[in-house]
Amino acid sequence: MNKNLLKENESLDDLECKGLKLIQNKNGYKFSTDSVLLANFAKGKQTDRYVDLCSGSGVVAILFACKNNIKEAYAVEIQGDLADMCRRSLEYNNLENIKVLNIDLSKTHEVLGNESVDVVTINPPYNEQGKTSNMSQIAMATHEISTNLNEICMECFKLLKFGGKIFMIHRADRLVDILFCLRQNKLEPKVIRIVYPKANKQPNLVLIEAKKGAKKGIKFIDPLIITNDDGSESDETKKIYNRNI
Amino acid sequence: MNKNLLKENESLDDLECKGLKLIQNKNGYKFSTDSVLLANFAKGKQTDRYVDLCSGSGVVAILFACKNNIKEAYAVEIQGDLADMCRRSLEYNNLENIKVLNIDLSKTHEVLGNESVDVVTINPPYNEQGKTSNMSQIAMATHEISTNLNEICMECFKLLKFGGKIFMIHRADRLVDILFCLRQNKLEPKVIRIVYPKANKQPNLVLIEAKKGAKKGIKFIDPLIITNDDGSESDETKKIYNRNI
Repeated sequence: MNKNLLKENESLDDLECKGLKLIQNKNGYKFSTDSVLLANFAKGKQTDRYVDLCSGSGVVAILFACKNNIKEAYAVEIQGDLADMCRRSLEYNNLENIKVLNIDLSKTHEVLGNESVDVVTINPPYNEQGKTSNMSQIAMATHEISTNLNEICMECFKLLKFGGKIFMIHRADRLVDILFCLRQNKLEPKVIRIVYPKANKQPNLVLIEAKKGAKKGIKFIDPLIITNDDGSESDETKKIYNRNI
Repeated sequence: MNKNLLKENESLDDLECKGLKLIQNKNGYKFSTDSVLLANFAKGKQTDRYVDLCSGSGVVAILFACKNNIKEAYAVEIQGDLADMCRRSLEYNNLENIKVLNIDLSKTHEVLGNESVDVVTINPPYNEQGKTSNMSQIAMATHEISTNLNEICMECFKLLKFGGKIFMIHRADRLVDILFCLRQNKLEPKVIRIVYPKANKQPNLVLIEAKKGAKKGIKFIDPLIITNDDGSESDETKKIYNRNI
C-alpha cells in the first residue's frame, strides 16, 4: 500500500468483507459490532443516493455502499481527524463512489440539496451529553456533544426524498427517545429489531428503519441474539460477519 | 346464586382465579387472554387507589384488585350495559372494594379528584376508528370511537399522583403511537414486554408500564410467548392462568 496513507498510531484493520480495510487510530474511537449490524440491517439499491451521518472512520458507509454497489454515497463527519482517516481508507480501497463531507451534519442538506437522498444510515452518539466537558474524539463519537437525536432527525427530514428511508442503530433503553423523535420529524418508524447480547439478557441495542411520510404501523423482525449462552458467536452473528457457519 | 343477577343471553364464566366468576353477554364483547396478561403484568399494593379504564365487563379490575388485595378500586366503563354487567359480577363475587363508574373516562378525574390515583390499568380499544359507523357494543370496545389513545393518556396524567403508574396492553404494531402518546402526556414509558403468539411469529401485543414524571429510559422484560410450536400453551401462559405446569 501507499505508505503515506497510514499515519503514526494508526492501524489498517480488516473489515472481513470483500477484502476491505479500514484505517483507525489505535488510541481513538474504533468501530464495533454496532456498525456491522447497521450496515447489514440497512437496505438499499445501486441507484440510491446514499448518506451516512456521524460517519466516523467511515465503516458503515464503506460496508453498506460496497454491499449494495451504491454509485453515489456520502460519509458525513464533523471531526477533521476522523474525516481525514476516512478519506485515506477510501483511497486505499479505491472507493471513488464514496465522498467524505467534513461538515456539521446539520449542513448536509445545504451541500447535497433538500429532499435529494434515498437512504440515510446513522450510528449516532449513544449517550446524552450530561455534564461532560470532555471534548475528545471518543467523547464526541459517543456523547451528544456536537449533535443529538432531534437534530439528526430534523436533518434527515430535510435530506430525504418523500418515501426515503433512515436506518439507525441505538441503545435499547433509549427506544422511546428514538421513536418519539422520528415521528415528531415525520419519519415514521416502520421496522424494529431488538438486539440482545445473549438470550435472557436485557437487550442493549435496537435497529430501526423509518420512512419519510409513511403511514403509521411498525413491524418487528425476530430478535437478534449476538452470542450463545457459552459466549461463542451465534450463527446469525457469524452470518452477518460473513464467516462460515 | 341470586338468579336475578343473570339476565337473558348472559353466561357466568370462570375467571380461573380464586373461584372468581364473570358475567358476560353470550353475543357481546368477551374478555380474552389480553385482560389476563394485563392483570398479571400490572403491579400494585393493598393501599393503592386503583382505577381500571375502559373496564368493559370488569375482568381486569376484578383480577388485579383481587390479586393485590386492593382496598379501593374503580372500574370505569362508558357503556351502560357493560357497566351493569360489571356491577352484577361484583355483587356475585362480593367485591365491595370495587366500584363501577358508568361515565366517559375523560370525566374520571372530576369524580375521583386530580392526582388522586396510584395505579391505572387499561386495555383500550385497539383499532383506530377508521370510517366505521358501527356503534355496537363490540365495535365500541374494539375501536377508538368513544375514546382514543391520546384522550386516555391525558386522563391518566390528570388522575395519577406524581410517580403513579399506568399499565397498558395494546397492539404491537401500534407501539410508536403508544410510546409517543405516553411521553407527550408526561407519562414516561419505563417497562416493555413484547408478546408473541408463537416464537418466530410477528408479535401481536405489547405490555407497557409508564410512570408519571419519571426519568427517561426503558427496560425490557423477556418476550412472552403464548403458545408452543405445537399449539399447546407455554409454561408461562399456564402460570399466568394459575394452571398447574
